[in-house]
Amino acid sequence: MRPKNSRLPRNAVLYASSEGDANVLYATKFFAPDPILYLERGEKSMLVLNDLELGRGKKEASVDDVLSLSEISRKIGKSHPADVVKSLLKGRKKVRVPGNFPVDLADGLRKRGIDVVVKPMPFYDRRMVKERREIRAIEEAQRATEDAVNTAFDFLRRAKVRGGKVYNKGLVTAESLRRLIHKELLDRDCIGKDTIIACGEQACDPHNRGSGPIYADQPIVFDCFPRSSKTGYHADMSRTVLKGKASPKVRRLWETVRDGQQLGCELVHAGVNGAKVHRAIMDFFEEQGYRTERKKKGWVGFFHGTGHGIGLDLHEPPWIGKNREFILPEGTVVTVEPGLYFPGLGGVRIEDMVLVTKKGCRNLAKLPKFLEL
Amino acid sequence: MRPKNSRLPRNAVLYASSEGDANVLYATKFFAPDPILYLERGEKSMLVLNDLELGRGKKEASVDDVLSLSEISRKIGKSHPADVVKSLLKGRKKVRVPGNFPVDLADGLRKRGIDVVVKPMPFYDRRMVKERREIRAIEEAQRATEDAVNTAFDFLRRAKVRGGKVYNKGLVTAESLRRLIHKELLDRDCIGKDTIIACGEQACDPHNRGSGPIYADQPIVFDCFPRSSKTGYHADMSRTVLKGKASPKVRRLWETVRDGQQLGCELVHAGVNGAKVHRAIMDFFEEQGYRTERKKKGWVGFFHGTGHGIGLDLHEPPWIGKNREFILPEGTVVTVEPGLYFPGLGGVRIEDMVLVTKKGCRNLAKLPKFLEL
Repeated sequence: MRPKNSRLPRNAVLYASSEGDANVLYATKFFAPDPILYLERGEKSMLVLNDLELGRGKKEASVDDVLSLSEISRKIGKSHPADVVKSLLKGRKKVRVPGNFPVDLADGLRKRGIDVVVKPMPFYDRRMVKERREIRAIEEAQRATEDAVNTAFDFLRRAKVRGGKVYNKGLVTAESLRRLIHKELLDRDCIGKDTIIACGEQACDPHNRGSGPIYADQPIVFDCFPRSSKTGYHADMSRTVLKGKASPKVRRLWETVRDGQQLGCELVHAGVNGAKVHRAIMDFFEEQGYRTERKKKGWVGFFHGTGHGIGLDLHEPPWIGKNREFILPEGTVVTVEPGLYFPGLGGVRIEDMVLVTKKGCRNLAKLPKFLEL
Repeated sequence: MRPKNSRLPRNAVLYASSEGDANVLYATKFFAPDPILYLERGEKSMLVLNDLELGRGKKEASVDDVLSLSEISRKIGKSHPADVVKSLLKGRKKVRVPGNFPVDLADGLRKRGIDVVVKPMPFYDRRMVKERREIRAIEEAQRATEDAVNTAFDFLRRAKVRGGKVYNKGLVTAESLRRLIHKELLDRDCIGKDTIIACGEQACDPHNRGSGPIYADQPIVFDCFPRSSKTGYHADMSRTVLKGKASPKVRRLWETVRDGQQLGCELVHAGVNGAKVHRAIMDFFEEQGYRTERKKKGWVGFFHGTGHGIGLDLHEPPWIGKNREFILPEGTVVTVEPGLYFPGLGGVRIEDMVLVTKKGCRNLAKLPKFLEL
């Protein structure tokens, strides 16, 4: 069955591993580590698999037909994927493909007289808007994320501070906390990758994963965005906490981000322009005295986007950011994750996922926000 | 610095996430979750990053220049990646790209008068042949794999059998063993995905991950192929074991695969044709009375390839298989993993990674092969 209401032009071709390509997984609901060929011809959806994947595909894939690559190749006497596609198109001369479609297969189709047209993102318009089962899958991943991050918080709560560093059966490091979180995620069928645990100065670079000892009295950004290995859907959550006592300056920074994040959540509703939400948070930060500017050593303040859509891809439309005029559709799930970063003081980021509704949004995160552990 | 001896045509462009694309990671040694632009112009290698990745890129990427996407865009007054590439090519009119290069960027370049030529796999000839640091990384991942699988074996050894099922603080299942292995892998900075733990009939479909209870006296295929999150390199190992007592038929099946696998290892050397190695194992299995054929319900016998190259990709050239005439170059790392599968009896697969040398090969696996735990 092709994705419901996919509003996709009649003939479409995808060729990628469904584990690495969200469109293929969306269309087939079949996990495959190697590239597989998926085709929509008129109302019919087809998946072409090699002999080793055929049995599993027939059981698991949600498509009209699961076809054998070796049988088709034998029948047409050719095995190039472009020949296979051509034969399955039965005379149709035009296909739509996503922007990341492999150029060699596109060239091969064009050589065979097929018109290959790139449809810009999102390839499936409906992929942005989440069905109930998709929201459930995202919430399930979010519960796992909260449980796992909470376990790390408990671990830090039970820890002792000595000489500015933190100990719990040994020195507590970003690496040891990350491992703890990733193991907890595994117990909940989620795979964590590159979870950010950045303490002190490290957190001022929002793409620094964090490493080495955790220091007391300094804000620690936790940004955790695992993927469910059962469903393929992601969660994404950031919290900023601190072991010990926060200085008044750090507390004020944290409270400002918390309030800015809440303001963002209040502004989200179906039909709002993401850029407007972003600017409102930015303005609020300015009013509070936190200016975003480029210094000699790099940016300070709030210099990344406010949020992004999330689903089978960790980052997908819609977008909430400065230069991204984007009207948020009802039923999309987006992150709201402003942050403030000032070397010498530290970094703070707070992030929830919310479901965009007609009148506002529903926050999918349940983990409370607090600074001191 | 561009990859040594890359023998790559003068101008090359890559555009992908280095976490998902081995060529980008090979060329840059920089882990990026989102697509990044990499370019080789003459002898110079360049990485173009957005502001958030710029600082980390300058520290970590192994390229001649790390350039700012926003600065280039400002300078040329355009932000389309094709315009950025065109400006960086400084008048050069031809680029090579890999087959999986995104069609939209290829079309964009062609529209701008750039000749985009697809270089077939392997894009970097030298990527097949492993440098010493790469072999070390593969061996490190292999040690992690062996430790993790061994932990599962120990867990099974300590288990009790009751009513044909296996218990160790609760019912032992494929899922619980997989979790145990993946956690052990995490402790060794490796990420395990879809580790196969297939018992009894399940193992007869080599792509069945396995699920549900582990049964006594039935062969269990363990096939574990994690990736190091530090280096990006993979390991790959299969063992077939059994909790309890093997029937004479199962023991004979297992011993035949073990001997066939050893035969394969003995035949591997630089310059041998992979297809020849495969046929020799196939012939040996036939001689022992194990025929490969297609039955009504699917294939039985030895119906997959013997092995594949491994490195930053789990599956990469060179190939060892029936229809794959491929001369094995010195210094490549390949798997040797024959198997036999007969419904009613079970499946057996045994796999090592070996380094292809002038006169033979060096087995990178140290974990002994045994059937009964």
